[in-house]
Amino acid sequence: MIEFSKNQIDKLPHLEKINLINSATGYKSANLIGTISEDHITNLAIFSSVTHYGSAPAIFGFVVRPTTVTRNTYTNIKTTGYFTINPVHEKIITDAHHTSAKYPEGISEFEKTDLEEEYKDNFKAPFVKGSPIQIGLKFLEEHHIKANGTILVLGEIVKLYVKESLIENDLFINLSKANIATINGLDGYTIPLAPKRQAYQRPK
Amino acid sequence: MIEFSKNQIDKLPHLEKINLINSATGYKSANLIGTISEDHITNLAIFSSVTHYGSAPAIFGFVVRPTTVTRNTYTNIKTTGYFTINPVHEKIITDAHHTSAKYPEGISEFEKTDLEEEYKDNFKAPFVKGSPIQIGLKFLEEHHIKANGTILVLGEIVKLYVKESLIENDLFINLSKANIATINGLDGYTIPLAPKRQAYQRPK
Repeated sequence: MIEFSKNQIDKLPHLEKINLINSATGYKSANLIGTISEDHITNLAIFSSVTHYGSAPAIFGFVVRPTTVTRNTYTNIKTTGYFTINPVHEKIITDAHHTSAKYPEGISEFEKTDLEEEYKDNFKAPFVKGSPIQIGLKFLEEHHIKANGTILVLGEIVKLYVKESLIENDLFINLSKANIATINGLDGYTIPLAPKRQAYQRPK
Repeated sequence: MIEFSKNQIDKLPHLEKINLINSATGYKSANLIGTISEDHITNLAIFSSVTHYGSAPAIFGFVVRPTTVTRNTYTNIKTTGYFTINPVHEKIITDAHHTSAKYPEGISEFEKTDLEEEYKDNFKAPFVKGSPIQIGLKFLEEHHIKANGTILVLGEIVKLYVKESLIENDLFINLSKANIATINGLDGYTIPLAPKRQAYQRPK
């Protein structure tokens, strides 16, 4: 085993440090978050931190970095109250990853990629057209992390659309049937094969 | 597309609701969190919510459910200040998933499975022996989610051990080389193949 102490990690060159630490959590979700500003400028950004916080009510959270530069996703959610989550699947990996480029304000990632906006059921924020899962959320609360200034943003699901062929009898969504991606580290994408389901566990 | 409104989600039977909502985030990390009580009783529990919060300093977070019943992981972290994170890999999936069974207090999951404790470098909490990645963390801060009483627990990495064969030149950890698992929903495990890495993105 290669061993890294806190001091050794802190002293690593920037790129090596972010590769190492971002890979060590295990696999991450790959999602595009869609928002719109008060001036009707849309924004689409890739996040690998979408996490389940509860099913009743249905609450998801994700992490935004310190607002030292403009963070359109966060600003749009705070001003409009709404956002969408759309998983990255095999055919859109290149465009999805490109949303990590830093565009100046006023330019939408929907213009700069082949990803298209979709609006439905009067939901305020844009979904990604053709996405096998589309989730519309309403902003709930935020928590500021003292240690580094990152922000946990939480929203409640108000609309959920799922491609019918992915849903199994017990409402398990089989992500592999839509070739949905998972992320290793900052930039490694892979498409998992069908999962094997484990039984509910009781003490032996 | 099958459509679920907030009201329809809220009215679903419990098992269908948790399957649907837990699958909708996309793929999750699969990690075992190891702790020890003041009375030296160890605890090992599977979590699918470990999330990267920062690399400098290196901060990871995970979510614990409301403390209406005893939550050993949370209690142990709050009393000792330390915990370990160990990824689930192909050979230990059955035992790792079994740690979700509700054992009475005083019984360690290390006794009830073939998973073995490992202590090293005077780190207080137990690692999982043979794990290709072993992360030792110090408790940093916690955030209580108002909407449902869940708790975000944050820790800083103080020790990181990685099997040498997984580490690439730029310190990217290739999770597929250790057959590390990812979770779909509550109970679907799959072992992703090697990732394809995308380049750093600049505006077009």
